[in-house]
Amino acid sequence: MTGPASPLPVHGCPLCEADGGTVVLAGSGWRVIRANEAGFPAFYRVVLTDHVAEWTDLDELRQAEVLRVVSVVERALRDQLQPTKINLAALGNVVPHLHWHVIARFDWDSHFPAPVWAVPLRQVPEERLQGVQSRLSCVEDQIRQRMAALA
Amino acid sequence: MTGPASPLPVHGCPLCEADGGTVVLAGSGWRVIRANEAGFPAFYRVVLTDHVAEWTDLDELRQAEVLRVVSVVERALRDQLQPTKINLAALGNVVPHLHWHVIARFDWDSHFPAPVWAVPLRQVPEERLQGVQSRLSCVEDQIRQRMAALA
Repeated sequence: MTGPASPLPVHGCPLCEADGGTVVLAGSGWRVIRANEAGFPAFYRVVLTDHVAEWTDLDELRQAEVLRVVSVVERALRDQLQPTKINLAALGNVVPHLHWHVIARFDWDSHFPAPVWAVPLRQVPEERLQGVQSRLSCVEDQIRQRMAALA
Repeated sequence: MTGPASPLPVHGCPLCEADGGTVVLAGSGWRVIRANEAGFPAFYRVVLTDHVAEWTDLDELRQAEVLRVVSVVERALRDQLQPTKINLAALGNVVPHLHWHVIARFDWDSHFPAPVWAVPLRQVPEERLQGVQSRLSCVEDQIRQRMAALA
């Protein structure tokens, strides 16, 4: 709608200059990364390739494309991990380059039911985190398979 | 996709049993509310009428409908308030009834650039908040007009 269709990479933007995490799948105009955030192994991001700041900088077609990827990631997290809740967010206050956080939350995690950005409420035994970690390859296989099926 | 098409209201759910804020506009299957959150006058929510928990409980058609409303709210906030950033989030850890937070953020607000759920960083002069507050009727007029135009 507004903004150029393919803006140039922005010098100094961490999501223009680097992947921002472990790339799970790179599509046309977006990538899925594992964020590797401490305490939240099942924390993924769908990052737009172009440096645009706001959701409404995308037209409806591109919104639908990006949302389809977000939904595939959410579905894989639900299917493979049975989390208590999925959290979706596009904030971008620090890095105004459009990216969706897709986070599997568990009632035992360090912050639940508070958002991951709030003050932690408890410590989590390492085994719990490793239990999730051990399933991430299944999550990521499902993401790749579903996106391939949609292509 | 999963879940019944129109689940019954859930006893004890605050978004089944009450509006959850000041209703700006009620549509078919959703409502836009002003959240009346202290320190964040331009904090709106798009609340699903049905009690469903997760984004992927909606089929693509309903996702697109809800996202169109979210985008109209975001666009009205951008046009009328020129915020530093828009924040979008569907968390639902405390109230697992699908609702999108649509928040206009300002570089002077109590938490910026941290999320609104983090620890506050500063106090905000009341005049700043009143300046935003005085523009909300324009935001809400635009929301109603754009949704009417789309109907």
